[in-house]
Amino acid sequence: MSKKLTITTLLFEDFELLDVFGPLEMFGFANVLKKNIELKFVSENGKPVKSSAGPVSIVDYSFEEIVPSDILIIPGGAGTRTEINNKVLIQWISNQSKKTNIISSVCTGAALLAKAGLLDYLPATTNKIAFNWVASVNSKVDWIPVARWVESNNIYTSSGVSAGMDMALSIIAKLYGHDIAIQVANGAEYEWHQDSSYDPFSKIHNLA
Amino acid sequence: MSKKLTITTLLFEDFELLDVFGPLEMFGFANVLKKNIELKFVSENGKPVKSSAGPVSIVDYSFEEIVPSDILIIPGGAGTRTEINNKVLIQWISNQSKKTNIISSVCTGAALLAKAGLLDYLPATTNKIAFNWVASVNSKVDWIPVARWVESNNIYTSSGVSAGMDMALSIIAKLYGHDIAIQVANGAEYEWHQDSSYDPFSKIHNLA
Repeated sequence: MSKKLTITTLLFEDFELLDVFGPLEMFGFANVLKKNIELKFVSENGKPVKSSAGPVSIVDYSFEEIVPSDILIIPGGAGTRTEINNKVLIQWISNQSKKTNIISSVCTGAALLAKAGLLDYLPATTNKIAFNWVASVNSKVDWIPVARWVESNNIYTSSGVSAGMDMALSIIAKLYGHDIAIQVANGAEYEWHQDSSYDPFSKIHNLA
Repeated sequence: MSKKLTITTLLFEDFELLDVFGPLEMFGFANVLKKNIELKFVSENGKPVKSSAGPVSIVDYSFEEIVPSDILIIPGGAGTRTEINNKVLIQWISNQSKKTNIISSVCTGAALLAKAGLLDYLPATTNKIAFNWVASVNSKVDWIPVARWVESNNIYTSSGVSAGMDMALSIIAKLYGHDIAIQVANGAEYEWHQDSSYDPFSKIHNLA
């Protein structure tokens, strides 16, 4: 694949750090090998955005602009409790999804996809601590309580925080082949959970 | 512990994303539980810094300012190959280490600690792909080729990229107790490697 691939992550106030930078580490490492990936950030007003833990990231685009996204990443974090009621953001996700090949969420980012109606009648997962809240957002979704991540058509939803890295590696495997995904995981010295149904945290958080 | 704890990460051009945001995810989650942690960034000139993968972070302090750091984190990444020759940065690490309780590195960040002389005659580790380069920086260091991370007095050095999360959890366990570290790992749905000598990547990268 030599065509440029733009991976765009939506940032909002109080996003969860690793929901964003875990997957981006994997895609960034894939770019060291494949040289065709570009990472971009978008936020509602295009201004820098503060994570829930404090660190602030500079953003490339606002909702007013034409935003490229071959892959769209919607993170979770405490901020999703506010953004779920942000009609402008939910509408943007709905519109942008039509121009995006692969849509993915990490953690409670799935609540935003569900609110936008993108998960209706599809299997999906989210993090396990907030599972019941996310599931309550949209009962038309087939919420899966035991899963590291779920792939459903072109939509990937992952479980909590660090599961985003496993999901990202599975997307890399789909795009570039399994060997490249293994090279990325080994390069980052990350033990990739390759089985999407592997989920010890469902039990820990009383969902299984 | 109710006293405020400032965790300061040094950023430089082409730092590795997960070296920074992996540990900060864990410390940020610990702060949700303990409410006394503050995360800060410092760079040589105090301006925003671009990671090797592209994303740019806003910085709190420059080297000209008094920088608080109960814990100092030195990440790795492609930029360490340049910074190893940056005398101002190496001197800053040396000076700042005297005002810091815990000093830690992730990945090739250990090369910068070694260059500053902080690891002389101590056991330390680094990532496995670049192990030989890092070891060549300072032969007075007892470089350990098979280790997820190494704790030596108040200095923690971790292996590549994702090992920083395991090291951070071990620091959290030391500061707040093992139960809090487990709560953080479970909250982030991260399978913490608690054994610092566990290192399958040494073999993968031909060091064991």
